[in-house]
Amino acid sequence: MKRLAYLGPPGTFSEEAALQHDPSAELVPLPSIAAVAAAVTAGMADAGVVPVENSLEGSVPETLDVLIHEADLFVRHELVLPIEHHLLVKPGTQPAAVKVVYSHPQALAQCRRFLERCFPRAEVMAALSTAAAVEEMMSRDGDAAAIGTARAASLYGAEVLARGIQDRRPNVTRFMVLAREDHPPTGRDKTSLAFTFATEDRPGLLVAALTEFSSRQINLTKIESRPTGDRLGSYIFLVDVSGHRQEPLLAEALEAVRRQCSFFRVLGSYPKWQP
Amino acid sequence: MKRLAYLGPPGTFSEEAALQHDPSAELVPLPSIAAVAAAVTAGMADAGVVPVENSLEGSVPETLDVLIHEADLFVRHELVLPIEHHLLVKPGTQPAAVKVVYSHPQALAQCRRFLERCFPRAEVMAALSTAAAVEEMMSRDGDAAAIGTARAASLYGAEVLARGIQDRRPNVTRFMVLAREDHPPTGRDKTSLAFTFATEDRPGLLVAALTEFSSRQINLTKIESRPTGDRLGSYIFLVDVSGHRQEPLLAEALEAVRRQCSFFRVLGSYPKWQP
Repeated sequence: MKRLAYLGPPGTFSEEAALQHDPSAELVPLPSIAAVAAAVTAGMADAGVVPVENSLEGSVPETLDVLIHEADLFVRHELVLPIEHHLLVKPGTQPAAVKVVYSHPQALAQCRRFLERCFPRAEVMAALSTAAAVEEMMSRDGDAAAIGTARAASLYGAEVLARGIQDRRPNVTRFMVLAREDHPPTGRDKTSLAFTFATEDRPGLLVAALTEFSSRQINLTKIESRPTGDRLGSYIFLVDVSGHRQEPLLAEALEAVRRQCSFFRVLGSYPKWQP
Repeated sequence: MKRLAYLGPPGTFSEEAALQHDPSAELVPLPSIAAVAAAVTAGMADAGVVPVENSLEGSVPETLDVLIHEADLFVRHELVLPIEHHLLVKPGTQPAAVKVVYSHPQALAQCRRFLERCFPRAEVMAALSTAAAVEEMMSRDGDAAAIGTARAASLYGAEVLARGIQDRRPNVTRFMVLAREDHPPTGRDKTSLAFTFATEDRPGLLVAALTEFSSRQINLTKIESRPTGDRLGSYIFLVDVSGHRQEPLLAEALEAVRRQCSFFRVLGSYPKWQP
């Protein structure tokens, strides 16, 4: 049986992604994205599931940092999951009894309109995760609600009072499955890479690099410039392109980009997500 | 006197940015980035200060969304501020007495290593903002600490037990000052824009757009692709270039890009930040 680490605790969206990726795996919840990466690198887990990007919130910086810096870790799969926020209560709690609503600040922000309309007088309380919010809510005596997942409801014995309460739809999160090797070619693949230039602030460097792909009819599916942490203005580029790094045309383009960069890393090739 | 809205409550980094931007302004704390934008659009405030990007955390999606969608709102200034997290306690509290540490989950994440080393047994508690964390800590009887700003310490009468406790340095945040008009040319300006293509997933569209800048020797200082929210894979591009939109070469490039896009918006031209 495979061991699959994920960003815990149980009841989070990462656990839902891990369950969907491999229902037969032994799941190992870990407290941080860095811990998931370390468990995979050290062989304590065969693979690890972490969130990388949400359609409302943008990228998850910790995941990108791990991918940029961990030379032994590769993206082996991607998954895209719909994120549904539910309002959970202790079984039998009436809406009028709800005086406090717990959740992670991001989930609270994503459900602000619902809360303002339906619970204008409820106090909003922060929790470290949506799962921790459900746990705290269940420890109170019926005057609280929590924003969490359907899975958290069943784990903690909570009742779903309202479904899909997020303000904007659709809300989807992209997860990556990290492993010590990326995926063999399947014919419908994507490749993620990260690079930076020695001479920054010169017009045309990024365009020259991207032209290596476009001139070979290789599609760019994502681009992001991320501050390196040294100072704002000094950026590392994260790019997804279609194709597998072993395909000759893409391999040629990657080699051409590598020659222009001061730092260059292929984060992995993996099958394109198909819902 | 000018009225300057900012993302409150008092004691947050946005208040520090607002104070630095205009020490003589009347400051108006508001509960969300959308509220700051609405106050400026409706004339209730002359300008509004919001965070847009942090060197560790990446972009602030809510600010980008407001800029993309609010056609009457422009970037008039940028500011880059160092972010220093401090450990605050009730005056006289000894380190050994600290059993609970409050803060916003992002601040807790940025200080994880310090907490693990110096307070391995303390319970970590989430708060809605660093300022709310300091307020909660002050309401307890000397067994708690909070991660917050120097300004929050003086506002709430807290003592600074440890300075600059964030894990990685430097940690800087870029703020934008939003107004109903952008800034006149100063000779050392930047311009922010957002655009998307009607035909996505075709190689070369982005490269063609970026070439309009590089072929005119216009420097690209930032690029980000942000999911449109419809589905992952459909992206809006956010780009910063050097120069003012009234400069003839840049105006020409912007017009050329506009013709290739299904959505195009100049978010504003403003003086480049100089520390």
